[in-house]
This record gives sequence, structure tokens and C-alpha cells, in this order.
Amino acid sequence: VPAARSVPPRITLLTDFGTRDGYVAAMKGVIAARAPAAIIDDASHDIDPGDVHGAAWAIAGYWRRYPAGTVHVAVVDPGVGTARRALAIDADRRIFVGPDNGVFTRALGAARTVRAFAIENPTIMSDAVSATFHGRDIFAPAAAYLAGGGEIHRVGGAVGDLVRIDVPEPRVMRNAVRGVVVHVDRFGNLVTNIRPSLVRSGAAVRIADCSIPMCRTYADVASGELCAVVGSADVLEVSVRDGSAAERLAVVRGEAVTVS
Amino acid sequence: VPAARSVPPRITLLTDFGTRDGYVAAMKGVIAARAPAAIIDDASHDIDPGDVHGAAWAIAGYWRRYPAGTVHVAVVDPGVGTARRALAIDADRRIFVGPDNGVFTRALGAARTVRAFAIENPTIMSDAVSATFHGRDIFAPAAAYLAGGGEIHRVGGAVGDLVRIDVPEPRVMRNAVRGVVVHVDRFGNLVTNIRPSLVRSGAAVRIADCSIPMCRTYADVASGELCAVVGSADVLEVSVRDGSAAERLAVVRGEAVTVS
Amino acid sequence: VPAARSVPPRITLLTDFGTRDGYVAAMKGVIAARAPAAIIDDASHDIDPGDVHGAAWAIAGYWRRYPAGTVHVAVVDPGVGTARRALAIDADRRIFVGPDNGVFTRALGAARTVRAFAIENPTIMSDAVSATFHGRDIFAPAAAYLAGGGEIHRVGGAVGDLVRIDVPEPRVMRNAVRGVVVHVDRFGNLVTNIRPSLVRSGAAVRIADCSIPMCRTYADVASGELCAVVGSADVLEVSVRDGSAAERLAVVRGEAVTVS
Repeated sequence: VPAARSVPPRITLLTDFGTRDGYVAAMKGVIAARAPAAIIDDASHDIDPGDVHGAAWAIAGYWRRYPAGTVHVAVVDPGVGTARRALAIDADRRIFVGPDNGVFTRALGAARTVRAFAIENPTIMSDAVSATFHGRDIFAPAAAYLAGGGEIHRVGGAVGDLVRIDVPEPRVMRNAVRGVVVHVDRFGNLVTNIRPSLVRSGAAVRIADCSIPMCRTYADVASGELCAVVGSADVLEVSVRDGSAAERLAVVRGEAVTVS
Repeated sequence: VPAARSVPPRITLLTDFGTRDGYVAAMKGVIAARAPAAIIDDASHDIDPGDVHGAAWAIAGYWRRYPAGTVHVAVVDPGVGTARRALAIDADRRIFVGPDNGVFTRALGAARTVRAFAIENPTIMSDAVSATFHGRDIFAPAAAYLAGGGEIHRVGGAVGDLVRIDVPEPRVMRNAVRGVVVHVDRFGNLVTNIRPSLVRSGAAVRIADCSIPMCRTYADVASGELCAVVGSADVLEVSVRDGSAAERLAVVRGEAVTVS
Repeated sequence: VPAARSVPPRITLLTDFGTRDGYVAAMKGVIAARAPAAIIDDASHDIDPGDVHGAAWAIAGYWRRYPAGTVHVAVVDPGVGTARRALAIDADRRIFVGPDNGVFTRALGAARTVRAFAIENPTIMSDAVSATFHGRDIFAPAAAYLAGGGEIHRVGGAVGDLVRIDVPEPRVMRNAVRGVVVHVDRFGNLVTNIRPSLVRSGAAVRIADCSIPMCRTYADVASGELCAVVGSADVLEVSVRDGSAAERLAVVRGEAVTVS
């Protein structure tokens, strides 16, 4: 009986490394050596250096789209070489591997079951662990171990007190909701933390002293016009059709938004 | 008898998303969940936002190099949320998936057989289809369906009147050929629409008030010198050896070129 | 007896092409057509155009991390179209494919056994070989041939006199070691050619008229402070914690460094 086609292990990588220094490829090589059948999907290597909040946002958008068993590695790690822990986390059967600095906060906030462990077992690390590149020496070997079917509780001790980043919640008032811009994307869309359930039909959105109409999609306004839509993350976004709302309004992450 | 090694499904992705927002990884996750053995090759995520012409140029360079059965996804989609159709196209046994905005025009112009269908069948889309991210909610699931062996005619109705972008043809005159720069590449090479069959030996190339010699390869001129060669797309290119012709001549897409 | 899961061939790609022109995807397509089960890992496509030294540095960081049998393709090839040779090299059972311009110098310097061949056999090239894109027409088909188990000596004649780039060695003097910055990474770390065995404890590092303390890791200094650490390539690096030493010191590749 021929074997059914087996499903290869799948590992995603997200870093702030860029690719030109060879750091990402070193991680891929470590994975390929230890889990030779694994398919490695690049999530991103263009996270701004040290931008844990931006990484947390990106991960929230893809982690659960991948099937159970996927290992998601995230190395945005300004604290490498400090005492910050290295983590392996099972969240609804997707596995996260990365530093304990809050980079998984948004994903874990949406998970039903979370079991976290500190990566401490030297037998699943590289033989020599550098002080400055845990992506290659700890996270990549741990990811290969877990993608290859290794049991997560063998990486080290259970961890209960994960570091979390601040995820701002909107403030619901009598006649208005006050939120903030939590992410600015490549197109200049201003993604807020305001869910559509908080927005009544006919609402007006105010940001940077502009009043912006709620629309179903960009196409409801003319090219170059501002609109507010429920975007792909199921929260309110302020956009310019065929343009950049971030540039038009000169707004960055953290800007206040009011819906009334 | 052991099974012969099966060939995994292969899907290429081209977008104008960049990678830092997690949008590309969300598409990959949807594909991995529905076609777990698929290998996903990044074609590019650095297309200029909304640049359908640039995307059409890039696709023309790779689509047929891939083997029959490959699914090529292209999401450069400024019209997302409008009534523009979503397409699945079989062209010489490669499958295109993307918006009906002309992004496949150059590839289809070189195909012998083309069968196009509108993606309309909700059972091959995500359960919830957003208004702003059809890459994740329509194109990625359709690509996984087709890469997994799904029949293309099941995605929706046949389409005969595909949207096409303008692909300028050179004008052949008695003593000269007039073309244009159709693409400027990363090295500053100015790619024209003039095929070598239109160029007599000893011809002179004029662009931006400069006369440029025809050469076999960059190495026929000294470093820093301008030359015109038949490039990798089998059309005339204007180049600077070890430099950028686009910078030297201050030329962008659309510039006139004459060969006489 | 079901077949054991076979290990797919693995090919890495490093270029200075960027991705937006479709050149990289054309190479991937050629590989996929000739080695359909191969997994292609992007190493980098963001090498500065023509920067053979930068490419050589990056490759040195990952080539041996990959398992035996991996094919590493590197196309940073300002000499395409000249008489420079195309190479296939077996180095400690990893295979390099690329131009004979020194791009593999650093990797080969760390290999125990090296066998190099000129790619000359037209049956393993594309049917039509362009003058300007050997990545697609020579290197990609050769990589697919070798990843699929093709014998390296069949690509062409043995080569003994490989082109090498200059790899500067530190000068060891009575009371000091003089080295140079050989690479500046994305984080602005200044990577030198000084190995830790040359550095006594309590040493002082001088660069750009600054004296910098030796530390075990970035965390040994306050945020924004300069430090010198043994980095991930096992050489001395000058860094700014949470910042860029390259910007702080206005230093580029080639800058002198002294340890005394």
C-alpha cells in the first residue's frame, strides 16, 4: 500500500532582521538541518527594528489562518542577551516560538487555550549559544524540534506570567466611542481599535480634526477621498481611496479617533 | 511498492502588500490550511501600490517558466470592493488567480489557449468575505482549491470579455521604429517594446536626445557607458554598464525610443 | 511497507535583483520545472546591486547551517556577459552555484574539501541562453540539475584557479591588534575581522576616535550606549544598545579598528 502523501511540517518566520545580512537564512538553515522536510514560509523580515507592537499586530492577522500544528517563529528581540525568557507556547494548537517580550500578546488574547513553556533544555538548542543571536541558536532549533513532533513540555518549565504589551481598549462613553490608531499599514490605512459592534449606523468618525463618513468599502467615495470602513481585521479603518490616509492626515500610531 | 515521490502543488504569490502588515502571511495561512502540502513561492510583494502595469510586466517574465499545474496568484487590486470580477484563468495549463483589472494582460497575450472564469462560488471562498481583503478571502482559497486539483469551471461562470491594460506596440516606419520604455528595472535598465527582429545591424538607438550604440552585452562598453542590448525579455534595453540608465537619462516608463 | 518520507531537495537563492521585476520568480520557475519537488528558500534578494563583498559575507553566515546536499545559488553578477566563468562547487557536501567573481570566497575559506567545476555543458542550461540573465538561463537550471541528484563533474571541466575577493586579515602587533570593519548590518552593528582569541580580557577597542568597552552582550550597557561584543559570527562587533553604531560613529565598511 503506498503511503498517503504526508503533510510536511510548516514553520513561519517573522523578524526585524531584513534579509541582506544572512541572519534569516542562517535560521532557515538550522531548521532545514533539523527538520529537513519542513516548509518555511516567510511572514515578514521587514518589521521595523525592535518594533514589538508592529510585530504583534502582524502576527494577529495570520496566526490562526494557518492550520493546527503550524509553528510560528517571531524574533523581534531588542532584549536578546538580557535575562528575558525564551518561549514556546501552544495556543489553540498553533505553536509560538520567540522571546518573552509581549510579541504574542495580541494573538494570545484571541486564543481559547494557552500553554506556555520557557525554552531551557540545552539539548534542543544549538551546541554553542551566542549572546546576540538567539534566533539562530535557540528559536530556530526549538521550532524545528516542535515542527518535527517534539513535545512542547520537554522544552522547559511551564510559565504563567507572560510579559504582555499594552493593547489599548476603546473607551465607550454615552454618546461616543474613543479609540486610537493601533497600526498604520503600507497603504497608509489607519487601523483603529474600534470594533464595528461599537459603531451605530450614521456615525461620524473624527480624527486629526477631520470628520470622515462611514462607508462599506473604499469604492463608496471618489478617488482621493477619505472614508472610514470596517477593514480586514474587523475593526474601523480610516483610508483614502487610491491614496494614503496617514500622509493626508499626518497621523501615526497612537492618534486618537472618536466615533459619535 | 513504495509510492513514487509525489510532486507537491505549487503556488506563486505576487502582491503590492509589502510584508510588514501580515497580509501576505494571512494569504499563506489560508492556503496552507486548505492545501497543506502546497509549496508557496513568493514572486514579489514589492510591486508599487496599485501598479497594475508593473505587476503585468513582472508576471510576463515568470509565468511560463513554471511547470504546468502551477497556480499564479496576483493581487494588485486597487478596485477591491468595487464590482470588478475575481478571475481564475487557465492559460496553457498554468492557472492565474486575481482581479479582473488587466494584471494578466501581458501573460495572456503570449498564451495559446485561454479559458477564463469568474470566481463566484461561495463554497470555495472564506466563510466571511471582507470588503477590503479579497486576497485572503477569495483569491487565496480559490488558489488552494485549484492547486489541490479542483476543476476550474466549478469556480463560476465563463468570462469572455476580460479587462485588459494598454500594451503599447512599436510603430514601424520606413526608416525607423518608434517604441517606448515599458518597464524600468531595479538596475535602472530601460526595457522597451522593440523586438530584435525590428532592429537592423548597425542601427542607432535614440532616447532622451542621446544616441546609443547597439551591443551584444554590457561588457561591450566600458564601465559607466551607455549601451543598447537585447535583454532577457527578448526586447531592446538601454543600460549603463555598472550603473543606472534611468538615472543617467532621467527617464521613466513611457519615454519614447527610436531605432533608425 | 510504506515509503519513508523522502527529504525534498533544498535550494537557497541569494541575488541583488530585488523582487519587483520578476527576475527572481523566473529563476524559481525554471527550478520548479526541472526539480518539481524542490523547496526554494529565499536567502536574500536585497544585496546592494553588484555588492560581491556583501553577498560573500551573507553566504558565510548560512551556508554550513544547511544540511549536506543543499544547493546554494548566489547571483550577484556585475560581470554577466563577460568571459567570467559560471561555477558549481562542492564544499563539504553543500553545493554552490554562481559566477566566478569571488562571491563564495568567505564560505570556501572555511571549508575542508572544495571541488570546483565550470558550468559548460549546454544540456544542463536553458535552450536559449541570454547575454544578460545567466541566473535564469544557466545558474537556475544547473541548481535544479544538482538538487535532483545530478553529478557535479558532469557540468563541465574542473577549475583550480577560482577568482577570490580580498578578505582582510587583522594585523597582530606587540601590544595591539589592528583590524577593519568588514560588514555593517541592518541594525548598524559594525562587524570586524577580529576573532575573540586575539582579544585579552580588559582590552580597549578604538574606532573613529572613540574608546569602547568590551562587554559580554548589549545588555551590559545602558540603552543608547556603545559596546563591543563577540557577535554571532564569532568576531568582534561594535554596537549601540537599541541603536545604530554605524550612525553614531558615521562609519562604513573598511573603517580601521584597534584592540589594545
